[in-house]
Amino acid sequence: MTTIRLTKLHGLGNDFLVLLDPDGDRPITAGLARALCDRHLGVGADGVIRATRAVPEGSGARITFELRNADGSEAEMSGNGMRCLAQAAAEAGLVPFDEVFVVSTPAGARGVTVRRDGPGRAWVGVDMGRARLDGDAERCNAGHGLLRVDMGNPHLVVLGPDPATVAVGELGPELERSVPGGQNVEFVTLGPGPDEVTIRVWERGVGETLACGTGAAAAAVALHHWGRVGSKVTVHQPGGDALVEIGEGGVVLSGPSMLIARCDVEVPVLP
Amino acid sequence: MTTIRLTKLHGLGNDFLVLLDPDGDRPITAGLARALCDRHLGVGADGVIRATRAVPEGSGARITFELRNADGSEAEMSGNGMRCLAQAAAEAGLVPFDEVFVVSTPAGARGVTVRRDGPGRAWVGVDMGRARLDGDAERCNAGHGLLRVDMGNPHLVVLGPDPATVAVGELGPELERSVPGGQNVEFVTLGPGPDEVTIRVWERGVGETLACGTGAAAAAVALHHWGRVGSKVTVHQPGGDALVEIGEGGVVLSGPSMLIARCDVEVPVLP
Repeated sequence: MTTIRLTKLHGLGNDFLVLLDPDGDRPITAGLARALCDRHLGVGADGVIRATRAVPEGSGARITFELRNADGSEAEMSGNGMRCLAQAAAEAGLVPFDEVFVVSTPAGARGVTVRRDGPGRAWVGVDMGRARLDGDAERCNAGHGLLRVDMGNPHLVVLGPDPATVAVGELGPELERSVPGGQNVEFVTLGPGPDEVTIRVWERGVGETLACGTGAAAAAVALHHWGRVGSKVTVHQPGGDALVEIGEGGVVLSGPSMLIARCDVEVPVLP
Repeated sequence: MTTIRLTKLHGLGNDFLVLLDPDGDRPITAGLARALCDRHLGVGADGVIRATRAVPEGSGARITFELRNADGSEAEMSGNGMRCLAQAAAEAGLVPFDEVFVVSTPAGARGVTVRRDGPGRAWVGVDMGRARLDGDAERCNAGHGLLRVDMGNPHLVVLGPDPATVAVGELGPELERSVPGGQNVEFVTLGPGPDEVTIRVWERGVGETLACGTGAAAAAVALHHWGRVGSKVTVHQPGGDALVEIGEGGVVLSGPSMLIARCDVEVPVLP
């Protein structure tokens, strides 16, 4: 047995275990991710994120981001997860505070900025890259719409009635599996204020979560595309609020991350 | 802010954060328990247990057991929780391995034995005291029965069909609130083998859990009272199996406990 130190953090109630593994000698297998994320038999989280210094040549990245969901599956990217990773890495001195650095992810390189925002708390902006809209499945009229948005991972944005009234637990899994490889699903309505939207997210491989960074970005991009909001959109989620800025260079998502605990876990020694 | 070190363990999937606080200078308030047990914003657990050396005079106890459920309410006793506390205290040297020691609880003094059972694993026997049966509400015929059993905390044992087929999430809260102060509810059926019962437990102030020590004891005592099992009963629960021994001196519950992690949490300094 060997001890690994994980940092548990949350971004808007979406919680992650972050493993800082600069030298890359502690891979997270699907089985280890499931064991660590189990909420009764493990520490418990929506996913495990590993940061290593093994970055693609010429990427300019300081660290590499690898995320496994609670079911062991690999994810390309998570806005909330990236915020948690960035805070943990900055507090450990792997990346700087208050200046842009680059993180390599399976969905591409991302510019990130971390600012201290109180004890155990940070405010993190993440360049989410360009959204790619899939016009094929697009529909929009009055208060209803459907749009597939790729934010590095696939999303289906469903504009409709107040998400509080939607049977997310039934529709979510059905829509998740309606395309090969699955997709995340955002149930969104406009408001309550101008340039504001309210969403609930069904995450592929996870289930409903309190917040989802790429989901917030996808929802804001879709509503902006339909001309219903401006380019700076506040996204209300059950876990709290995020800010999505849609510009020429891409989408920037900003929001809080919060340190919960540092946890030492005994795990089997690698073969 | 100050750092507190918690040990997360589980007994049959019933998970607890244990705070070893020998000198008694870190009380766990209802609000702190809720924050720590929150599964997304905190470390996450079914409850928080604090151990101090402040024991009642003449009790012979080595440590005092205090448990708050995830909703912040105080519990008199928990068999799974006691096992977790005992393992954590033994590993820290507060109590011995392999000999009986006494723990003071709001439900009375309890004899406890801890045995090492593999890496991070222990097998713990706990004297649960005498069960008190409340004949007033008793009913039993064929495969059905109702009995209130006090194991230091109040239980309603419901003998009926396979608990897998019971709507625990609907019946549990209703039966929990059917007496002043509430009660735990065990849905139990006989088998699959002789001297075996299979249960699901709705815990007062918590909801359905994967296992409940006092619930396992109450179910075994009720079925023994009705002559359906002997005095050594294996209790199958979603989280695993426990052994209940019903003797002249009282009930002894034995089962596993498992270390999950040691977690450092920043909490506000006490006033």
